[in-house]
Amino acid sequence: MLTRIDHIGIACFDLDKTVEFYRATYGFEVFHTEVNEEQGVREAMLRINGTSDGGASYIQLLEPVREDSTVAKWLAKNGEGVHHIAFGTEDVHGDSEAIRGKGVRVLYDAPRTGSMGSSITFLHPKDCHGVLTELVTSNPQH
Amino acid sequence: MLTRIDHIGIACFDLDKTVEFYRATYGFEVFHTEVNEEQGVREAMLRINGTSDGGASYIQLLEPVREDSTVAKWLAKNGEGVHHIAFGTEDVHGDSEAIRGKGVRVLYDAPRTGSMGSSITFLHPKDCHGVLTELVTSNPQH
Repeated sequence: MLTRIDHIGIACFDLDKTVEFYRATYGFEVFHTEVNEEQGVREAMLRINGTSDGGASYIQLLEPVREDSTVAKWLAKNGEGVHHIAFGTEDVHGDSEAIRGKGVRVLYDAPRTGSMGSSITFLHPKDCHGVLTELVTSNPQH
Repeated sequence: MLTRIDHIGIACFDLDKTVEFYRATYGFEVFHTEVNEEQGVREAMLRINGTSDGGASYIQLLEPVREDSTVAKWLAKNGEGVHHIAFGTEDVHGDSEAIRGKGVRVLYDAPRTGSMGSSITFLHPKDCHGVLTELVTSNPQH
């Protein structure tokens, strides 16, 4: 069951400048940064609020680290903006398989590693009214 | 001070079909619907989770009700997808004026009426790394 908005993923050309915009404009601070080599991105997580399921909602800022990453291609086509949205669940595997069974394309055969050691998968935006949609199960060690 | 992700605004061509997609795929139910004549949209709010500031986070589905609305023009250019993101605050007027003072264009001279009697304004996406950003103060009667 999806129990929260986990994050909004925003693609940007320059992570440091975009982090500084969010800090200076809104007061949002960086909670975590990492490079996800598999996804080809450098990212910053800004924690915005806690959620009623015991988790939290973040803004995730994403800068591509290689030109063949999906985020680099997306930026070249669309410019900066909202790249995806993510819902949190305790069971990304079970929920994504149930959604696959409803005819929505799930992009990975099995969940992969996302921010802060989470398990993630994505749903095809063409099956989701134009919205690239991620499902996330947090790593409790974070 | 911005204390939550209030909602993610998603533009769609057919509100009823999109509401049904979110219900059938994720189990999200409609919390509220209304027509906002000023914004030129018919909308459905899906409540996803409560937030640590005492508010909530929603998915807001938006269908234009007239061809000259900004959402209709946006859909014609972009197709369905994430139209804007919104942060919640107790003081949309004060926060938006402070942000205006930092050089970010605020689209309204004074806040207008948003979903469920809230007070809202928008920040220019070109000043926000490509993200149309709304600030919202909820109406406590909702």
